[in-house]
Amino acid sequence: MPVTAEASRVGAQAQGATESSLKALDSTGVRLERVCVAREMTSKVGPRSFLHAGPPISLADIPGPMRGAIIGGLLFEGEARDVAEAEAIIDSGEIEISPCHDAGGLGAMAGIITPNMPVAVARSDSHTTFAPLNEGTDGAVRYGSYDDRTLARLRWMASDMVAVLDEAVQAGEPLDLVDLIAEGLRRGDECHNRLVATTANLIVRFAPSFIRSKRGEAAEKVAAFMSGNGHFALPFAIAMAKALTLSAANVAGSPVVTAMSANGREFGIRVSGTGDRWFVAPSPVGEPKLVPGARIEDITPTMGDSMISETAGFGAFAMTAAPAIMSFVGGTAAQAKAFVDEMRGICAGTSSRFLIPVEEHRGTPIGIDVHRVRATGIAPVINNGMAHRLPGHGRIGAGITRVPIEPFIAASEALAAGARLQ
Amino acid sequence: MPVTAEASRVGAQAQGATESSLKALDSTGVRLERVCVAREMTSKVGPRSFLHAGPPISLADIPGPMRGAIIGGLLFEGEARDVAEAEAIIDSGEIEISPCHDAGGLGAMAGIITPNMPVAVARSDSHTTFAPLNEGTDGAVRYGSYDDRTLARLRWMASDMVAVLDEAVQAGEPLDLVDLIAEGLRRGDECHNRLVATTANLIVRFAPSFIRSKRGEAAEKVAAFMSGNGHFALPFAIAMAKALTLSAANVAGSPVVTAMSANGREFGIRVSGTGDRWFVAPSPVGEPKLVPGARIEDITPTMGDSMISETAGFGAFAMTAAPAIMSFVGGTAAQAKAFVDEMRGICAGTSSRFLIPVEEHRGTPIGIDVHRVRATGIAPVINNGMAHRLPGHGRIGAGITRVPIEPFIAASEALAAGARLQ
Repeated sequence: MPVTAEASRVGAQAQGATESSLKALDSTGVRLERVCVAREMTSKVGPRSFLHAGPPISLADIPGPMRGAIIGGLLFEGEARDVAEAEAIIDSGEIEISPCHDAGGLGAMAGIITPNMPVAVARSDSHTTFAPLNEGTDGAVRYGSYDDRTLARLRWMASDMVAVLDEAVQAGEPLDLVDLIAEGLRRGDECHNRLVATTANLIVRFAPSFIRSKRGEAAEKVAAFMSGNGHFALPFAIAMAKALTLSAANVAGSPVVTAMSANGREFGIRVSGTGDRWFVAPSPVGEPKLVPGARIEDITPTMGDSMISETAGFGAFAMTAAPAIMSFVGGTAAQAKAFVDEMRGICAGTSSRFLIPVEEHRGTPIGIDVHRVRATGIAPVINNGMAHRLPGHGRIGAGITRVPIEPFIAASEALAAGARLQ
Repeated sequence: MPVTAEASRVGAQAQGATESSLKALDSTGVRLERVCVAREMTSKVGPRSFLHAGPPISLADIPGPMRGAIIGGLLFEGEARDVAEAEAIIDSGEIEISPCHDAGGLGAMAGIITPNMPVAVARSDSHTTFAPLNEGTDGAVRYGSYDDRTLARLRWMASDMVAVLDEAVQAGEPLDLVDLIAEGLRRGDECHNRLVATTANLIVRFAPSFIRSKRGEAAEKVAAFMSGNGHFALPFAIAMAKALTLSAANVAGSPVVTAMSANGREFGIRVSGTGDRWFVAPSPVGEPKLVPGARIEDITPTMGDSMISETAGFGAFAMTAAPAIMSFVGGTAAQAKAFVDEMRGICAGTSSRFLIPVEEHRGTPIGIDVHRVRATGIAPVINNGMAHRLPGHGRIGAGITRVPIEPFIAASEALAAGARLQ
């Protein structure tokens, strides 16, 4: 076949594939299915089998906060009686870890998911996804904490909170998670690092059930915890985002990114047309805004699955919807506009559901196209939290981070090579 | 005294007075005091003594929706057994009406307040203010409706809802109403025509009490009603605004506006340095966005006390904080920016509490200065709802309305004349 005809064929195929992925991203319905513990959702967790954030990583390579989170998980599951026992289990390799993404799950930050951790479950017609309930920022296993208070809170969340929340989910009308996030964008949240209005909306949706509940004392405590934790809605948002991106996955030739994720060592992406293959590069540190007293040299490079938000078209890709977040991550409202404009240049489409009021209700950019990233030289930006490099030291910052461009270029080349081989 | 020296003296006095009013507007603390019925807050209501929105108006001159609201009030209070009896009472003049503003109250739209109507009460160190609980837009006495369903809802609000809400107010930490509105601006509300996130925040604040309440069924109904009524937080906002503006009132020589209000016939303002005197002009119609099927000739000119929002520095003066409102009132986000910029030119100061995230957390313009209005020729804009001109026909639109400039010019001249006389 002549070169021009081949290029034309490849181009037409890629365009159809892109549109197919875009349509899935933009039209898949996702509802809140239930709140339960992780072992009810996947057989990939067990007493010594935990999930982790990001692309695959060997136990020997895990960063400090992930080690802290595994220690926390072993204590939480009763597999270790104390920190020393937990460390011995890790150091002897008597535990398996595998990516959340391969289990239909997502874990913010370290992303360690153990069998009895509480999760929010989202469901589309084709996929079921889940993410651990958010523990707040005052000591959290996902940031590598494993102190008694953190674990006591997690136990309460896995029992009383799961019962109260699942009762609320089952009692009401099905909660449309795409609508929840779309409404969040109208209420000043970008729904990755700012979800305070979305969390309030969740409380409002659950309130009738909380009031009716026979578990009155627990319900009151759950409502109070939620109202004091502005990130509570995050797992609901990212489980939804994962269901959207799964719907766009595995379209032959499609250059649309279906996962961005990091494990603190490596940042990786999956692309629709290349299936489950990870394209990776070293995790970036970025230029985070640190909490008072923290030092940049103490930071763990970017880590976590929550950048599925940006992959699905919100978070940093909806930054103009949430000007109040900018001071939290160390920027200005004007920069937010610049980021979103830039992302429009590397995305294949515009959301018809995630609308930005201040942009005259224009949709957010959706469908990161690896070819466009390669052609423009512009890599995506994400909003993220940052953990201390040592186990047990928790959260030390937040920022807007530019992810490495190399995985996008590699994926673009792989797609092009695949097309030429056909 | 030579003219220049006099001008200098007058100028210095005016500047000090302006600063005094501004400081009061910008620093007065206001908390939610209670929820009760109006007769507990003022002796100016009685079985045949109702309050109304706007500057004084005679019974013979009231517009249709105010007549409808009085009919509703007479039926609600049991003073009339049917509409015919209520109309006879009005037509025979057997009822007195007086401005809400003179009773420390505010009524949105028609603003008819009767003894047993449910009100939210705000309190500063110096003033107590109140405004009727919001009935929603699906039939409301404030829009002139008096059908059975509207009155049944109002009766329920005056009994069960008052009990549940006041229990919540008394149970929790004092609710800082300035903070509530400031947070609303961070959540995409301008807090006059858009209060959906602020209402959600109120539900969140009240939720622990709702859950604990012995009145479980009523509490559940209250929560559901609030979550279905995005304007529910409005009376809490305007009662707070009235407390702020009262704190800025009665400063000799101060050109700061302390009330803007309309009764459907006349629009009027009060100014700090001229005390309780009203400066009036015919009420404007503006260019509202009508509900489907409504006609501009069916509209009642601007009416209501809720433009105290703008007087206190939010509502249209915070329009950039709420880009999502613009489509509701028929405009664009770009116009919102133009309005706020324009208002900065006629205000004496900038709020240190009501901050607009998208303007890099710059404060809203506060303290409308009648001299500046006169000098620039720019009259304030307000967000408002519009009622049908006939009693009982309810809400037919919403808009951004430019108020008449004449009252500001007259007040400026009166202040200048007063200064010359000293």
